[in-house]
Amino acid sequence: MIETLEPIGIIHSPYTDIENMPIQPRGAAEIDGTVEVYDPFVEGLTDLEGFSHIYLLYRFHRVRGTCLMVTPFLDTKTRGVFSTRAPQRPNHIGLSIVRLLGRAGALLSIRGIDILDGTPLLDIKPYIEKFDSVKESRSGWMNADGSTVAKMRSDGRFT
Amino acid sequence: MIETLEPIGIIHSPYTDIENMPIQPRGAAEIDGTVEVYDPFVEGLTDLEGFSHIYLLYRFHRVRGTCLMVTPFLDTKTRGVFSTRAPQRPNHIGLSIVRLLGRAGALLSIRGIDILDGTPLLDIKPYIEKFDSVKESRSGWMNADGSTVAKMRSDGRFT
Repeated sequence: MIETLEPIGIIHSPYTDIENMPIQPRGAAEIDGTVEVYDPFVEGLTDLEGFSHIYLLYRFHRVRGTCLMVTPFLDTKTRGVFSTRAPQRPNHIGLSIVRLLGRAGALLSIRGIDILDGTPLLDIKPYIEKFDSVKESRSGWMNADGSTVAKMRSDGRFT
Repeated sequence: MIETLEPIGIIHSPYTDIENMPIQPRGAAEIDGTVEVYDPFVEGLTDLEGFSHIYLLYRFHRVRGTCLMVTPFLDTKTRGVFSTRAPQRPNHIGLSIVRLLGRAGALLSIRGIDILDGTPLLDIKPYIEKFDSVKESRSGWMNADGSTVAKMRSDGRFT
């Protein structure tokens, strides 16, 4: 079964090049961007302003091909791609949680963006504390501390 | 631009009917299910066992059409679909955070499943506390308390 996707908008960010981009929103805490939702979908943004955080689902549009074993930015060993957030995954779907600063019509102002300029947007979902917060978790091989994540920049290895 | 998706697996759950299904993992805290990853993608599961929680991205395969304004299960007013988790959204992509109990080859045992049996799986991502935890948030119109979420069951309105 093959299904099709149609972008509902486009993500604008300061990152026009994959090199030197933060690898996660945590590394981009003060970086602002804009989500532009296309006209036919704008009505669906109603009520979104009440949420402080949103999930963006988007397409890793610069990535070609997939790789089941990858060496993540935060590790030196190869890892199964589903245990990483690397873009060279089957279906090339990316997921980020960002802060929603405000909305003006079709435009959302967001903060904490780790997404390439021009990225096609597939979906927006509200972050709902009661559904989404995880009180205790284990993060497997991902043992880098917060400051390492914040400082780490991408190097184009996944393009 | 239209892009295509190929399922990487299938989700098995006790829910064979949309009616009476929990509406979120919080309403299914003790419900177990299985993720079956198709052979060509199994290598990508390497290292996933170290994570206690994972995101599942999947297709709302029983939903036909989209609706930009919906009345969520937890509300009496219509809301913009992007401020809800309703399935009748553009691109029909679902997102759930579930607990990973273990892995045996291509099979993942998961807990806290709010997903229909036979749902096509699009992606698995690790929940990484440093990337994904949100310390403080506002959840807009979603004011139902935790016990309401846990008790609420779907009624087929989105099919």
